[in-house]
Amino acid sequence: MDSGLIHIPYDRPTRTARQTFDWAYDNAIQADQAGFTEMMVAEHATQAWECIPNPELVIAAAARDTTRIKFGPMAHLLPYHTPGSLAIQVGWLSRILEGRYFLGIGGGAYPNDAILRGLPADLSENHARVRECMEIMTRVWKREPFHYQGKYLTGGYPEEAKSEHEGDEQHKLADHSPWGGKLDIAVTGLSPESPSMRFAGENGYMPVSIFSGSSTLKRHWEIYSEAATANGHPADRSKYHVSQTVLVADTDEEAKKRALQGGIGFCWEHYLWPIWERFDLLSGFIADKGAHKSDVTMEWLCDNVWIVGSPETCIRKLNDLFEFTGGWGTLQVEAHDYMDDPAPWFESLNRIAQEVAPNIKLPATVTGQPAEPVAARTAELRSVQMRP
Amino acid sequence: MDSGLIHIPYDRPTRTARQTFDWAYDNAIQADQAGFTEMMVAEHATQAWECIPNPELVIAAAARDTTRIKFGPMAHLLPYHTPGSLAIQVGWLSRILEGRYFLGIGGGAYPNDAILRGLPADLSENHARVRECMEIMTRVWKREPFHYQGKYLTGGYPEEAKSEHEGDEQHKLADHSPWGGKLDIAVTGLSPESPSMRFAGENGYMPVSIFSGSSTLKRHWEIYSEAATANGHPADRSKYHVSQTVLVADTDEEAKKRALQGGIGFCWEHYLWPIWERFDLLSGFIADKGAHKSDVTMEWLCDNVWIVGSPETCIRKLNDLFEFTGGWGTLQVEAHDYMDDPAPWFESLNRIAQEVAPNIKLPATVTGQPAEPVAARTAELRSVQMRP
Repeated sequence: MDSGLIHIPYDRPTRTARQTFDWAYDNAIQADQAGFTEMMVAEHATQAWECIPNPELVIAAAARDTTRIKFGPMAHLLPYHTPGSLAIQVGWLSRILEGRYFLGIGGGAYPNDAILRGLPADLSENHARVRECMEIMTRVWKREPFHYQGKYLTGGYPEEAKSEHEGDEQHKLADHSPWGGKLDIAVTGLSPESPSMRFAGENGYMPVSIFSGSSTLKRHWEIYSEAATANGHPADRSKYHVSQTVLVADTDEEAKKRALQGGIGFCWEHYLWPIWERFDLLSGFIADKGAHKSDVTMEWLCDNVWIVGSPETCIRKLNDLFEFTGGWGTLQVEAHDYMDDPAPWFESLNRIAQEVAPNIKLPATVTGQPAEPVAARTAELRSVQMRP
Repeated sequence: MDSGLIHIPYDRPTRTARQTFDWAYDNAIQADQAGFTEMMVAEHATQAWECIPNPELVIAAAARDTTRIKFGPMAHLLPYHTPGSLAIQVGWLSRILEGRYFLGIGGGAYPNDAILRGLPADLSENHARVRECMEIMTRVWKREPFHYQGKYLTGGYPEEAKSEHEGDEQHKLADHSPWGGKLDIAVTGLSPESPSMRFAGENGYMPVSIFSGSSTLKRHWEIYSEAATANGHPADRSKYHVSQTVLVADTDEEAKKRALQGGIGFCWEHYLWPIWERFDLLSGFIADKGAHKSDVTMEWLCDNVWIVGSPETCIRKLNDLFEFTGGWGTLQVEAHDYMDDPAPWFESLNRIAQEVAPNIKLPATVTGQPAEPVAARTAELRSVQMRP
């Protein structure tokens, strides 16, 4: 399994924009050095806790100071952009990164983000806008003349005029198509019957699940792989990304303390718990454990939902999830606000990449690698916790 | 006079995006260290020679590594953006820079840029789009609920919902309004009867002239100051910015060689000369000198249009221009492609800021400083060159 970071950024609303920007930059540098393969940076317009309006500013700032990690806006919310402008920004940044770039796309989940653009708060047109925007961007990247007038969006590409004399370069068109002529595109899914997972499968995009329970994960893969197969795209689990709340320390006790008393605990208490309740997504966690809503406390979340503990504990918890769901290629660690004392957070990133991830492997049937008895390997570690 | 840089970027079309990005970053660092007060970065979509599609990516990359210089996109082409999305990107970046930011706005001059967005190539609606976009962005920055449906563009701002219980922060709205609650806004003018100069004056925006002849400069200030005065805004020459082609070296001979044989000469020959001819703007230079079109050679441009030479020569040329036009507050040096051998270019930036600019001053009547006989000071240096 590879290690990735997903930077929402889940920073306390009291942070300044400069602190948010610097923390994102610092995470990029640390993740790159630790051996993370990917960093996703989210785009949100109106949520105080999710406060990076253009992820490409962060990615551009980290581009020169990283060497291995791939960056992706996760996601550009396509209904809220002018397609031609976004297409050339994306293409240019993928070239600046010389390929260390992929494009996350989404329709947006917050009505306030739509209101800011003067669009209907019910978001019912957003998916159609996503499709139109992708259609236009894809054609822009081909650099052949066209004009497209959709129901919602419009775009085109000009024809290059001839030079007026030798050496005259005034009519030359800039090439802002993606590096290498192609772009990996990723889509996130959240709700159990996620239409985004179907959309990803239909188009051969990389699927990314925001963890909202192990049964939901299982269902996400079913939806994705069915749609992919039906449309002639390979359903490759090694390309599947799953986000989770993760913190690794020497001992379970120390890790729990760092999670609950640090940025993770603060964010879940003030932001994620209320918002997951609003979207009825806590139920996925509760059902996983055969628990009741009244059982949910911060400590319950830490023990039953997050991947928090010693390296051994985290390996066991992830292998349990792999056995139940079938596994994935990249664990997308959800970044949290440890600005006031970054050392434990960066220690955790290092240990995730170096001590945990190398011990988690997809079953042989999925990767085509030599067989390895994953079920047997994890059975002895499995507890009765997993009751999906 | 202050020294600024305007980074178009005028890089050879053979450069990679990464080279373009790095060169812009290097110029920002050098200009900051040399004592430049401002760096403008242009936004263009389709011109191979003007190939930065989103200036904020460059500004973000340089934000952490600069301390004094102010950055401005010059300009965001407002017809080509979703107003709500641009408003929060701009506000956020001004906060990241903790005020070292100003916003350049424009309508766009290249039909191909409009075609990319599916808009009419005749650009006749662009100015109306600029006004609508500014109206929406200004209201977004006030953070009060509204919905605006214009002829071309739409936007709004949501109302913050109440918390559902104490400590619940899911409804908090992000604050992406500009740093300090206000933003300096700048507009560029180019053609002799520039409507942009009038627009700047009407709204109290900072005027920026792209140099296209000294008589044009004189006219720009007339248009701007009349419109400003009529609308109750001060017409302050110290806020006036003028761009120019500038290169300083030890001697006139060395400076000419570095200009003509370096990035400046290559760009003028292959790009600026043809394009200025297309827009009928060479005529301003020709009229200034009482010359004829057939007189124009690269060397003629170097001697008669650009500010190229020893520090003394450049001081004299600028003082001539100041005397004829009335002067300006910031010289916006047009950046050129000296990537292959940056030392002469960066030497020039240093000497502009440290040896040339301190010797150019606005007349006392303009700045309210103690009187200084500018005409007398420069009369002895003046040649017969200046025949506007």
